[in-house]
Amino acid sequence: MSYEPSHMKWWGWGSEHVEFNAQAYPGFWPYAKSVLEIETDEFRSREWNLDTIELPDSAIDEKFLLRLGSFLKPAQISGTRKERVVHAYGKGFRDLFRLRHGVASGAPDLIVYPESEREVCLILRAAAGSDVKVIPFGGGSNIAGCLERMESRRTTVSLDMRRMRQVLSVDERSCTARIEAGVFGPDLEQQLAAHGMTLGHFPDSFLHSTLGGWIATRSAGMQSDKYGKIEDMVVALRMVTPNGVMATRTVPKSSNGIDVNHLCIGSEGTLGVITEATMQVHPRPQSRIVPAYLFPEFEAGIEAMREATRQECTPAMVRLNDPDKTALSLAFKPSASRWSNAMGNVFKRYLGIRGFALPRACLMLTAFEGSVEKVARQLRQVQAIYRRFGAVSMGLAAGKSFEATKYDFPHIRDFLLDRDVTTDVSETATVWSNILPLYRQTMGVLRAGIQESGVRPWSGCHISHTYHCGASVYFTFGFRQQAGREMEQYLRVKRAAQQSFIDCGATLSHHHAVGTEHLPWLAADISPLGVEAVAAIKRGLDPGNIMNPGRLQPSAKQIEPWTQAS
Amino acid sequence: MSYEPSHMKWWGWGSEHVEFNAQAYPGFWPYAKSVLEIETDEFRSREWNLDTIELPDSAIDEKFLLRLGSFLKPAQISGTRKERVVHAYGKGFRDLFRLRHGVASGAPDLIVYPESEREVCLILRAAAGSDVKVIPFGGGSNIAGCLERMESRRTTVSLDMRRMRQVLSVDERSCTARIEAGVFGPDLEQQLAAHGMTLGHFPDSFLHSTLGGWIATRSAGMQSDKYGKIEDMVVALRMVTPNGVMATRTVPKSSNGIDVNHLCIGSEGTLGVITEATMQVHPRPQSRIVPAYLFPEFEAGIEAMREATRQECTPAMVRLNDPDKTALSLAFKPSASRWSNAMGNVFKRYLGIRGFALPRACLMLTAFEGSVEKVARQLRQVQAIYRRFGAVSMGLAAGKSFEATKYDFPHIRDFLLDRDVTTDVSETATVWSNILPLYRQTMGVLRAGIQESGVRPWSGCHISHTYHCGASVYFTFGFRQQAGREMEQYLRVKRAAQQSFIDCGATLSHHHAVGTEHLPWLAADISPLGVEAVAAIKRGLDPGNIMNPGRLQPSAKQIEPWTQAS
Repeated sequence: MSYEPSHMKWWGWGSEHVEFNAQAYPGFWPYAKSVLEIETDEFRSREWNLDTIELPDSAIDEKFLLRLGSFLKPAQISGTRKERVVHAYGKGFRDLFRLRHGVASGAPDLIVYPESEREVCLILRAAAGSDVKVIPFGGGSNIAGCLERMESRRTTVSLDMRRMRQVLSVDERSCTARIEAGVFGPDLEQQLAAHGMTLGHFPDSFLHSTLGGWIATRSAGMQSDKYGKIEDMVVALRMVTPNGVMATRTVPKSSNGIDVNHLCIGSEGTLGVITEATMQVHPRPQSRIVPAYLFPEFEAGIEAMREATRQECTPAMVRLNDPDKTALSLAFKPSASRWSNAMGNVFKRYLGIRGFALPRACLMLTAFEGSVEKVARQLRQVQAIYRRFGAVSMGLAAGKSFEATKYDFPHIRDFLLDRDVTTDVSETATVWSNILPLYRQTMGVLRAGIQESGVRPWSGCHISHTYHCGASVYFTFGFRQQAGREMEQYLRVKRAAQQSFIDCGATLSHHHAVGTEHLPWLAADISPLGVEAVAAIKRGLDPGNIMNPGRLQPSAKQIEPWTQAS
Repeated sequence: MSYEPSHMKWWGWGSEHVEFNAQAYPGFWPYAKSVLEIETDEFRSREWNLDTIELPDSAIDEKFLLRLGSFLKPAQISGTRKERVVHAYGKGFRDLFRLRHGVASGAPDLIVYPESEREVCLILRAAAGSDVKVIPFGGGSNIAGCLERMESRRTTVSLDMRRMRQVLSVDERSCTARIEAGVFGPDLEQQLAAHGMTLGHFPDSFLHSTLGGWIATRSAGMQSDKYGKIEDMVVALRMVTPNGVMATRTVPKSSNGIDVNHLCIGSEGTLGVITEATMQVHPRPQSRIVPAYLFPEFEAGIEAMREATRQECTPAMVRLNDPDKTALSLAFKPSASRWSNAMGNVFKRYLGIRGFALPRACLMLTAFEGSVEKVARQLRQVQAIYRRFGAVSMGLAAGKSFEATKYDFPHIRDFLLDRDVTTDVSETATVWSNILPLYRQTMGVLRAGIQESGVRPWSGCHISHTYHCGASVYFTFGFRQQAGREMEQYLRVKRAAQQSFIDCGATLSHHHAVGTEHLPWLAADISPLGVEAVAAIKRGLDPGNIMNPGRLQPSAKQIEPWTQAS
């Protein structure tokens, strides 16, 4: 129980000592300066001082605290300034921007670290008895605003699950594992590896997020094409609610009425605390490769992805960049890599001969894993499809570079924030026939939304997470900040993207949850009666409304666009 | 709108003019007589007379009827004796036995046939206004007791969906189809075939069940190994509730909070009427074969199935019979088939040489479908696995016989009921490591339960519907009836099987729903809080409790074991 992963830095992504090393990617900053019309290399001081942060007075219900003390050790309860700031928000743009400007109004009054399901039960019982609000906390990596308190008057506790981190048992014959929900990605994979297994769930946040967080937000890993989204991997669950424990059985499928696993999955902390899950796991793949391809244009790449799903190829990952994201990827190459060399010389000439117009060319990464024989077979099959759509193979260097750096991308936002550049993402999912219309409309509104504040827009898109009937469509955008209007700029752009998803018949998010960022579109997405059904479950399991109040309830008071004091 | 499939015969399975032709299967009756110790060939007269059935007086709320008449045509409302009897029950043993003994206490007062979602809305609004109860009705094929009224005092309407049967649109690029929920299996497949598509859902009840029924009960088709259970195929849904319409979007996956599709799926008519679903569909397979194999023993067959899931082979169907079910299959062969000849001569000798003990040998059918190349590759891969576990190939004749007769099996129960033999099924799902323990315990309690009434037991089992972590385990049982104690005999055996599933950590059903037959085990399966959560959804969407009252609510008055008057 002594192992406890450290919290991320409060002013940005990742561990305190880790940041984006721009020198290692010499092409990146020049590219960003060029596309965003930045003229200076200056950046803000990074002497982050906790003492300058404005924290609301801690309003702790005395009776509740006394009660906690009766079953928790002192080291399981904390209310220090640092702990409160660390638990105030997730890692969305709005979260980081507020903290960097000294605002932590979303901070909880207290943080508790349960070490067993029994303790979680006792904490919820104590909270219910004193009308104390509880926000479950995994790694704190969410970027949709799932973690800040929306109910400010009552004592609010952040229930941090990181001490419940054991793989309790592995059934190697059935390929299932019973796992405590507070375990982080790397720790989980290490424990499963001792059994020769993997969960196969590798979201961008992998290093800093937990199993319980993945389930509560319907997360997707980069290899969901093969392993499924997290909801496809859940076999059984245990969730502690203020009304008791919901528990399901370890069975592959059932016809036992409404599937109550799906009430817990995606509940975003509003019903209870997921304490444990039995997950489908897989033997670790014998072999894995990530070849890269270049398509002459985006449309051809999408068609190739679609055809691969028709032929039921299911590579582990398929990731197609649009031309702008391709340009970003080419700029993002590590210095002196084989990939950079390959692109630098012979290859460009070859592409010229093939008639590729580089401004329209699209980079696609495709991961294959499994037995050596299976990888070879899939590779043959997929390459045949890709070639039909005009792709040229680019070998393995780009994929190796991606594999080596894939968890570093979130650091770039901090680097850019230091330079007064806002970047964020909006992503959705839609059916194959709707990907291009959605892409074109959303790119249009993103750029228009940025341009409204008179700065040069950058946006790019990648298609990934393929399914039989469609895929995820993931937009990244960036622009120079205008002093004093940063939040207004951000909200205009973010909202335009989300509204475009809904207008185009897509969903508010493929894998980032509802949170506060996407809440205004919930009723449009799941229909007003869907929202009412979710509220009905909440009334049944949490009648005192102590669990993460306000979430998944668009009728509740929504957080106003926050504008900084300056 | 003029097409309307006829109802099944009220006294048994299937169309009125279709019954089991024992002459075509000359080995079957001798086998049944032998294993069940039956000494006579006599059977009951089959002159079924509707007039002898005891129907409760029709108690029709006048205001409600008047209201219905304001928006439905007279031909959309019926209360005839025949219609009431046809809609009284599903097709479980308990259902058929009661009707055959002149009891139809579960009959509705009225049957309505809506032709549009708007009419469904109006019917529910009218019902809610008069506290009239509504039981949605698809094909009436359910065998878990989902259809009889549990609330006897109030006017009860059977809402028969068969006139809403159109495939509304097909998105061939995305492989999705928007379909009205009342369509029957063959009609649906015919409409999809016009677009070159198939749903891939072929339950035993295929000829006599509807899309809406499949979704409301979490049905599984025989080819779920490849196509998934029905819940895996649903992309979007529309469900009319007394509080309005719940509607979701046509997106492959989402992270929009709790997945409200899963509130509708498996709701067994308790929340509303599923009027329409957008389903994942597939190009019709180019090629399909169903080879048969014989394994030296059950354990080896199970291991081979498990290994095939490890190697991610996913044939369309895998179906392994235990030794008893294998003996039944051998007895069930059509007369003078190639299969029968094969078994009759050379083959038996060959098996002898290989050291097979026929009483322990197990028949396995495996279906492959897709492109010619894919079928060939899967076949090679699967056969290599099967051979490692000692299987011998039996060619294609047994599979052809199965394909030709697979929808006829339910007719056999009627044939046996005519001969005072009770047969029924109980099925569940469990993880690979638990299949054999569950199998052994359940076979034991089944036989002991039958023997308690002093008759010779027969039970058999097949494993099918494979998943990454487990499979479905399907038991069939049969025994001679003791006059006047038939229901007691049945309930003892059925309950022993269900209790065994729960005791062994499995689920109450893999694909037959909760109904009344499995309701006593619901809280044990999904936990008391799971039941409470389901009740909370019900309170939210159907506050007046007009939709199929009593279902999925084990605390409500459960139907008492019915004992016939004689």
